[in-house]
Amino acid sequence: MTSTKATSTGNSPGNSTPRPQKKAVIIGGGPVGSLAALYFSRSNWDVEVYELRSDPRRCGTQALDKKSINLAISERGLNSLKVIDPLLLEEVMKETVPMTGRCIHPGKNDFRGKGGGESQAYDIHGRFIRSADRGRLNNILLDWIERQPNVKIFFETALKRLDLDKKDAEFEKRSTKETITVHADFFLGSDGAHSQARRFLQRYTLMDYEQVYIDTLWKELEIPPEEGTGGFRIDGNHLHIWPRKDFMFIAIPSPDKTFTCTLFMPERFFDEIGDTGEGLLAFFNRHFPDVIPLIGEEKLVTDYFRNSKLPLISIKCSPYHYKDTCAIVGDAAHAMVPFYGQGMNAGFEDVRVLFEHISAHPDNLSLALSNYSTERKADAHTINDLAMRNYIEMRDNVTSRLYKFRKAAEELMYAYAPWLGVRTLYSYVSFSNVRYSEVVRRVRWQQGVLDRVVKMLTLGWTLGAAVLVRRMMGRRGWAEGGDGWS
Amino acid sequence: MTSTKATSTGNSPGNSTPRPQKKAVIIGGGPVGSLAALYFSRSNWDVEVYELRSDPRRCGTQALDKKSINLAISERGLNSLKVIDPLLLEEVMKETVPMTGRCIHPGKNDFRGKGGGESQAYDIHGRFIRSADRGRLNNILLDWIERQPNVKIFFETALKRLDLDKKDAEFEKRSTKETITVHADFFLGSDGAHSQARRFLQRYTLMDYEQVYIDTLWKELEIPPEEGTGGFRIDGNHLHIWPRKDFMFIAIPSPDKTFTCTLFMPERFFDEIGDTGEGLLAFFNRHFPDVIPLIGEEKLVTDYFRNSKLPLISIKCSPYHYKDTCAIVGDAAHAMVPFYGQGMNAGFEDVRVLFEHISAHPDNLSLALSNYSTERKADAHTINDLAMRNYIEMRDNVTSRLYKFRKAAEELMYAYAPWLGVRTLYSYVSFSNVRYSEVVRRVRWQQGVLDRVVKMLTLGWTLGAAVLVRRMMGRRGWAEGGDGWS
Repeated sequence: MTSTKATSTGNSPGNSTPRPQKKAVIIGGGPVGSLAALYFSRSNWDVEVYELRSDPRRCGTQALDKKSINLAISERGLNSLKVIDPLLLEEVMKETVPMTGRCIHPGKNDFRGKGGGESQAYDIHGRFIRSADRGRLNNILLDWIERQPNVKIFFETALKRLDLDKKDAEFEKRSTKETITVHADFFLGSDGAHSQARRFLQRYTLMDYEQVYIDTLWKELEIPPEEGTGGFRIDGNHLHIWPRKDFMFIAIPSPDKTFTCTLFMPERFFDEIGDTGEGLLAFFNRHFPDVIPLIGEEKLVTDYFRNSKLPLISIKCSPYHYKDTCAIVGDAAHAMVPFYGQGMNAGFEDVRVLFEHISAHPDNLSLALSNYSTERKADAHTINDLAMRNYIEMRDNVTSRLYKFRKAAEELMYAYAPWLGVRTLYSYVSFSNVRYSEVVRRVRWQQGVLDRVVKMLTLGWTLGAAVLVRRMMGRRGWAEGGDGWS
Repeated sequence: MTSTKATSTGNSPGNSTPRPQKKAVIIGGGPVGSLAALYFSRSNWDVEVYELRSDPRRCGTQALDKKSINLAISERGLNSLKVIDPLLLEEVMKETVPMTGRCIHPGKNDFRGKGGGESQAYDIHGRFIRSADRGRLNNILLDWIERQPNVKIFFETALKRLDLDKKDAEFEKRSTKETITVHADFFLGSDGAHSQARRFLQRYTLMDYEQVYIDTLWKELEIPPEEGTGGFRIDGNHLHIWPRKDFMFIAIPSPDKTFTCTLFMPERFFDEIGDTGEGLLAFFNRHFPDVIPLIGEEKLVTDYFRNSKLPLISIKCSPYHYKDTCAIVGDAAHAMVPFYGQGMNAGFEDVRVLFEHISAHPDNLSLALSNYSTERKADAHTINDLAMRNYIEMRDNVTSRLYKFRKAAEELMYAYAPWLGVRTLYSYVSFSNVRYSEVVRRVRWQQGVLDRVVKMLTLGWTLGAAVLVRRMMGRRGWAEGGDGWS
């Protein structure tokens, strides 16, 4: 790092004294904040990361933040790691489990069901997404940034005040209640859906803001590894879904051969289960009988009543910045429901895009931030909406015939006529770095063209059929009838 | 009041000891909070009102909160006063100025303009709305509640904490920084668009929330009374509008014969004016030349550069309550843009509706609040949307031909065929107590019927014309041609 610094200041012509280091304060040391710290550090800023929680690497497994759905990482997330350091990408990749498709487990009364699980590949060319453990990923990133000479991390510090005109932040050390005041050139809020940084940002800019809680709550459960072999109990390269129209159960493989499971349901079904083990088992016997032996009756009951049920929030806001002083990234800017597996990917992409704009205008941070805000707003709003739409689709329509037909038609073209440029929405979102907003535009255009092709084919078939009928009629009798047509 | 109390406890059969007084804490002593205090007091609660600002009746005019558009008060607001006390209504009425219609002042290049102002009555039956000074109205209400033996008001107290499970609120006395802890049975948040009560309520309930800033800012100006006579400088019974498509200027009469004026413009026009008196006068000469002599050049320049430009926020949220412990009313629940003149009316109506539900379920406050939340959400969201729509209409379309044609058609029917039950949207909103959501349903239905009537009339005319043509043709020649038709 030091050598990079020397080179970059050496490059500024006629400037013999090195430019004083600029300082960035990052509020929130989760995966997105940590990645941002690395980007700032590599751009030659002094970086300080302030995190509310304690150092996850210093605590036992129990203390780890388990309030988190297993993360899906796909092209956008991976690309944002690769751009800053291919070695980091490699290290992260080792800790992930490839998921090549969804495995659907229909209900026993489901007319579409065949009893067992049914695989739906994510991509006909074999591309796949990856499952990552949020805790492990965070630890890798924290280790990585701690090795940078210009990054400092402060755990257990709560943001209490943010003065964006004076450029001062005030944190409180949670153990000693001591106040730390930090002066910096730039503040980045990466402190999640209930961001304090965003709350302070709102005092400086007129922020449009929307938060919606969906009517579904979630509770985490777990399928342990197989006794004896220690392997996965069900196929370890699929995201397993038990869709039941009004609710669903999903299982995502982890590197430690467990499945992190989530039960998504409106409150009334939790009420229906009540607070007895019998109620719970009766419910699972009715809706997810095949899940019971996977988790084990006792563990199911223990985990269910130990873990709390949690809400799901979707947040949109705009703008994401104030002058040249502050910006927000990740869930702080656009928390979304987890049903497209894009939350962290979008957060990582925020960081990459933010630095693209900073690089484009190295001497005009104000313009860079304003451009970042404008570009990302459009994309974040789009993926928020797509995630919300997927919630309905995963819960309900995932096994419908129309869904399969459309997907098959698009994928057939994608597979056998790649020169047509047709790609599925899922493929664009998960396996490309095309802007989310642009993805939706392309897919809409594509569907318009497909519709026209279908109409033309239908017309073609009708004309073809008419010609055929004429010929047959001709052979049978009309031709014998005389010369009316000749 | 004491007699009422005695009567009501005496009415509960078999209950010899009087029920202990329940205590309501009202956060925010603006017009809506003060009216709520009166409602609670009359329902036999002990009431404490906590207001952030100082007592407006104890300060000079300068200290009065001038950051407020003059208020329009119409049927819903007046009715909510009347329901609780006809004498209060009478006292408020005295302090208002009737506005019988809008007076439109077209621009000099406006092809629709005729030079002078053009009156558009609000109602063909002569119903009108009223202009009220927010400060005076607030003072009347404060005086009124201070006379109740069971109401106490605490000024200069800021809400710092609200524990809705323990039912404790913590206020800070602004002068002494002393903390006051209050235990109560019920907390009502009436502390405006940037409500602290709502912020605390959000910690106890999953609240959907949306805030939008429109691209328009506003700045207050003033037309003084006429020198000598001391009367209004322009017609004092109209709301005057200078619509200029991208921005507008309005003037609302006050009881002291001034007009409270508001310049509504996107930021770029404020930038265009710049920071010199010349810039300002050039702008007014170009767009509002007739306004300059009304305000006076010097006063215009002074006021313009003294008063700050302020944003306009629109807020929707849901729910408005937590269990049987807390509810929000007025701007705290549904701040809206001021373009339908319904903000305070909707806030007053909240209070009336809240108490309708409390009266319907006197022993189940939890159910009453839940019903209030559900009912008011639908209505508040509707009037928020209507206000936003009116913003466009006032700024731009108010003088369009289509607008006038539609309005005239509806009003003609309303005037001459009242048995048709046709009423304009404006009339329903401003001159009735029909639920806002029901108003929109009725008007949509009405428009559907009107559309069909127009189609039938068109068909009728076409048939009539056909018959006419036939007759004319018959007279001219066909009839002479023979007996083909007979």
